[in-house]
Amino acid sequence: MYPDVPLPNAIQPLPTPLIDRWFEYPIRVQPHHTDYAGVAWHGSYVAWLEEARVECLRSLGIEFADLVAMGCDLPVVELAVRYHRPLRLGMAAIVRAQMRDMKGVRIHWHYQIQSPAADELYVSAQVTLVAVDREKGRILRQLPPAVKDALTRLTR
Amino acid sequence: MYPDVPLPNAIQPLPTPLIDRWFEYPIRVQPHHTDYAGVAWHGSYVAWLEEARVECLRSLGIEFADLVAMGCDLPVVELAVRYHRPLRLGMAAIVRAQMRDMKGVRIHWHYQIQSPAADELYVSAQVTLVAVDREKGRILRQLPPAVKDALTRLTR
Amino acid sequence: MYPDVPLPNAIQPLPTPLIDRWFEYPIRVQPHHTDYAGVAWHGSYVAWLEEARVECLRSLGIEFADLVAMGCDLPVVELAVRYHRPLRLGMAAIVRAQMRDMKGVRIHWHYQIQSPAADELYVSAQVTLVAVDREKGRILRQLPPAVKDALTRLTR
Amino acid sequence: MYPDVPLPNAIQPLPTPLIDRWFEYPIRVQPHHTDYAGVAWHGSYVAWLEEARVECLRSLGIEFADLVAMGCDLPVVELAVRYHRPLRLGMAAIVRAQMRDMKGVRIHWHYQIQSPAADELYVSAQVTLVAVDREKGRILRQLPPAVKDALTRLTR
Repeated sequence: MYPDVPLPNAIQPLPTPLIDRWFEYPIRVQPHHTDYAGVAWHGSYVAWLEEARVECLRSLGIEFADLVAMGCDLPVVELAVRYHRPLRLGMAAIVRAQMRDMKGVRIHWHYQIQSPAADELYVSAQVTLVAVDREKGRILRQLPPAVKDALTRLTR
Repeated sequence: MYPDVPLPNAIQPLPTPLIDRWFEYPIRVQPHHTDYAGVAWHGSYVAWLEEARVECLRSLGIEFADLVAMGCDLPVVELAVRYHRPLRLGMAAIVRAQMRDMKGVRIHWHYQIQSPAADELYVSAQVTLVAVDREKGRILRQLPPAVKDALTRLTR
Repeated sequence: MYPDVPLPNAIQPLPTPLIDRWFEYPIRVQPHHTDYAGVAWHGSYVAWLEEARVECLRSLGIEFADLVAMGCDLPVVELAVRYHRPLRLGMAAIVRAQMRDMKGVRIHWHYQIQSPAADELYVSAQVTLVAVDREKGRILRQLPPAVKDALTRLTR
Repeated sequence: MYPDVPLPNAIQPLPTPLIDRWFEYPIRVQPHHTDYAGVAWHGSYVAWLEEARVECLRSLGIEFADLVAMGCDLPVVELAVRYHRPLRLGMAAIVRAQMRDMKGVRIHWHYQIQSPAADELYVSAQVTLVAVDREKGRILRQLPPAVKDALTRLTR
């Protein structure tokens, strides 16, 4: 019998991050993102969170495909999503992504998916990645230096 | 600025559920589920969790499509997933789903994705659904009686 | 026993379309688009074709979501894709979409997915849509006037 | 300027295949397969075609993952789908898959997605695969012997 993964039910105050540390990635709800209810299917957001993360890294000079080619992967090990209100077919929104901290090779990201005018919150989420040696399938002892440098710039 | 959704980091003891209350749904990692790493992409699991939930309801006599046709929807409002080890291309696994509790119109499900022999745990997850009036887009005051009866059978 | 759908095996010459009638939609191969081979999964292209089509319509003043809200749908009734060479993780490409003709309520689109420098062809495709009355589930006798006008502008 | 991929518009007579050579793979339209219209999104069928193909090979003793591990891939190079009528949320159907011929390393599959009672046709499709050396990214000169033997049994 395994222990449970608790749901994200404790709301914690934000440590007032500076607005400029959020990476903004625009999305649009296309037909293939929707389900029978005419809104974005709840799993579609997981793809958007990933896209925002990859594009944030690209904006810092880290090509995710290069990282993979170098033998380093960054699989998701934890994911928590809270759905506040639905995004409907055709709506535009902004995925705001922020790398919050880095403990060794564990990297935490926070997300808020908002309306373009920032007056509606659709989804808030957290994702944890771990750096893995692709060949050995093992967790790395440390991040590749180029990644660590770029990410350190991101967190300050 | 919005509050954060915390990650599922507190491990809580299980209230010793009876094994027979887990619904078991077999899956297989097909090529379209995989990503560049040769393992199931982390978002593919969200679809499997949903399939297991729908099939569990069907096993209780609740056709999800009928519920939707009646004007009731059960959107996911919270989702937490922990990825313990990857499922590779071609592997078979079992999604074990358990409705854990029902507070008014909020329904909590727990999940464990295991190897067929139950000796490996790949993913543990929790999902919360809320019953919604499709027409009005509002949370229902109470579950439709047929659903409530079927789910009560499931939790006791 | 049903008749077969033949594969797209006859190569026909292009009637020299003017370059400016192709709508260009940029894409990027994200991790969730890839499969075990490290390249875009063949079904991912179907989503990109749809996105390009929707964005082409938007560029003409047709919001697809508005069309749906008005009771008109444009389901795909035929799809043919030829995969020339793979798009790999992280690669950027351009989906070029062209509405080729409109026979009553049947609308044909041609596609070419190319490298940004237009020196590599990854995919060529054709899609046929039919205008349907959503309420009745029946094929419409004619396109809604606003759609017909916008599309006529597109074809000439 | 590239040549067009023609749509599957020529209907050809079937060479009376024996019924027992169709592999049958049951599917169910889950919420994640649907789009805003409450029916299976047209791209969802591409995943089902692939699943039926992989399971048909498994029924013949070919594990697709083993093939990949041996360095052989079978990417889709051509795909044609005709959508006859929609599959709605919750509906069950049967994907009937038939390997129709094998020209060197090109393998053609035909498909029909039918109602369980075989009285409704939802989709007909064709897919062509080519055997590729994963390491070199080149088309193989011949199929791996184990695959060829198994597939020859399939075509008689």
